[in-house]
Amino acid sequence: MTTIQDIADKLGISKGTVSKALNGAPDISETLQKQILETAVELGYTKLRRYKNSAKRICILIQKDFIQYTEPHHFAYDIVIGFRQLAEPAGFEVEIVPVNAEPQRETSYEVFMLRNNFVCAFALGFSLNDPWMKDFQTSRTPVVLYDNQIRGNPSTAYVGVDNDEGMDLAIAHLKELGHKGIGYLSSALESHIMQIRYNAFFQALKRHGLEDDPVLAGCSFFLSECMDRHLPRLLDMGVTAVVCGQDTIASAALVQCQQLGYKIPQDLSIVGFDDLPICPYTSPPLTTIRQDRINIGKCGYYAAMSLMNGVFLGTVLLHAQLIVRNSSGSPVRK
Amino acid sequence: MTTIQDIADKLGISKGTVSKALNGAPDISETLQKQILETAVELGYTKLRRYKNSAKRICILIQKDFIQYTEPHHFAYDIVIGFRQLAEPAGFEVEIVPVNAEPQRETSYEVFMLRNNFVCAFALGFSLNDPWMKDFQTSRTPVVLYDNQIRGNPSTAYVGVDNDEGMDLAIAHLKELGHKGIGYLSSALESHIMQIRYNAFFQALKRHGLEDDPVLAGCSFFLSECMDRHLPRLLDMGVTAVVCGQDTIASAALVQCQQLGYKIPQDLSIVGFDDLPICPYTSPPLTTIRQDRINIGKCGYYAAMSLMNGVFLGTVLLHAQLIVRNSSGSPVRK
Repeated sequence: MTTIQDIADKLGISKGTVSKALNGAPDISETLQKQILETAVELGYTKLRRYKNSAKRICILIQKDFIQYTEPHHFAYDIVIGFRQLAEPAGFEVEIVPVNAEPQRETSYEVFMLRNNFVCAFALGFSLNDPWMKDFQTSRTPVVLYDNQIRGNPSTAYVGVDNDEGMDLAIAHLKELGHKGIGYLSSALESHIMQIRYNAFFQALKRHGLEDDPVLAGCSFFLSECMDRHLPRLLDMGVTAVVCGQDTIASAALVQCQQLGYKIPQDLSIVGFDDLPICPYTSPPLTTIRQDRINIGKCGYYAAMSLMNGVFLGTVLLHAQLIVRNSSGSPVRK
Repeated sequence: MTTIQDIADKLGISKGTVSKALNGAPDISETLQKQILETAVELGYTKLRRYKNSAKRICILIQKDFIQYTEPHHFAYDIVIGFRQLAEPAGFEVEIVPVNAEPQRETSYEVFMLRNNFVCAFALGFSLNDPWMKDFQTSRTPVVLYDNQIRGNPSTAYVGVDNDEGMDLAIAHLKELGHKGIGYLSSALESHIMQIRYNAFFQALKRHGLEDDPVLAGCSFFLSECMDRHLPRLLDMGVTAVVCGQDTIASAALVQCQQLGYKIPQDLSIVGFDDLPICPYTSPPLTTIRQDRINIGKCGYYAAMSLMNGVFLGTVLLHAQLIVRNSSGSPVRK
């Protein structure tokens, strides 16, 4: 394991200077500190070995352009709470760090972690385009990613809901109600999780012996395109139910269908995904697949603890649950 | 939550009698105890609520017909050690319970757990035909299954290695060495895990742009059929590498190929799966995908702890590792 001495030797400076830089002492110039931290990362130095003693600091990195967490109705609010519920009683100091792409471009993930004395990160809302996603491919400082998977780096873990199980529950529910033609609406397949849900939807159709033609899906970056183009197209094709990749799309579809004169669920059943706090209050209340966000946060902590202890788990999936409300029912046309 | 009073009411007997039966007191007849335990299970009573106090007993259920654990070179030996390494310091009493199909037919899983005062089980080596696999579909007493998955029951979790990642590492390694035609040998696809590895192999071929014709696979319940029929067939087809679903098949293939006059790895590269203790000692030493069994055991404990705390995680996959030894190399024929 890399020591402070190794870093000092590599740079030809004293151990004391390296130590000061690693601890953010004010009498080290910023340039020198940067050089020392980058060398430390390059040599594979992490603060992990010390986490049992003093440095018990974990950060929750939140990509603030994509995910909100400050209010109870925000998606990540409960995830943060669940994580803290386990981490803080275990003696960890948990710091929330909102980031977007810019600071990621300025400082590498591992230099950031070293500079701030964090032993592990829980990353929420990162997209495939975020600069640190590339750093995570090779970093040695543990990172647990919500809804993102890095294959081949044992210092990373992926935490999320079991989307296959979720889609299976949704399709089984609709099939039992008598639906045969089931469509799919989703935002663009540009995130890891939207790709997974799309595949899970079609695999579930196949498993239940239902038609699984790709034309049954409408995916777009623009919500308006989903509503104005894909939804009417699916209705014209005669589907009696639509599963949505996210509750936000499902709740928009509820409104749009009713504006087009369709009764929910008599003319069309709609099933969402996520069980956002809004779901019981849509009109009618939305049937959906729950990912329990408090428990996602707790799973995040279990995964973090495991990586910090050298147990290289890669994937932790939470059981999905079907929450039946009033937006799904037997089709009038069969 | 079901109480002792509920059970007493249902049977029209006293709370004291129910309590005695649940604690295995000697002055309750076996027939009455059986009736009380079965009613308790039917009403959804588990000892889970009490695990924080006295009843901290977990069992490791080992299907002794399919998996061995008593000697260091046995597959499950390290899994058991890994589990105990975390469970015992946390205050759990861990009991190893070897079972085969017979006791499973006599007593249901949950009655067995209640009678023996276990709050959670870690089940190793169960096949799809084991009677308790059916019980696990609906049981409320947490069970963590190694290499088996129960969808739709939040009291069950699946722990294993990431087979997709493992197959991806194997195929990437062989492709980098210059292989284009890669075959697959496996035992019959009658277990959950053999099905998963088979699919993972073909998905990895596809992802790496290699030929993924199903004729490239030879799977049989009989090792001799794999060796005498499928292996020669793959060699005739001109494959330069073979990935095996298990190390046992890979090590048999090493011997068979050399008897047929093929040099390993010049004429054929062979890659196993599991990294059994034998792998460094085959001739030549076997390149394989490691599932770290100590860490599988530790993941089993994390999953158990999580289920016992009401965090319903469903899947925990350990990172796979490629272990390169001498049975893989660049092909002489390309």
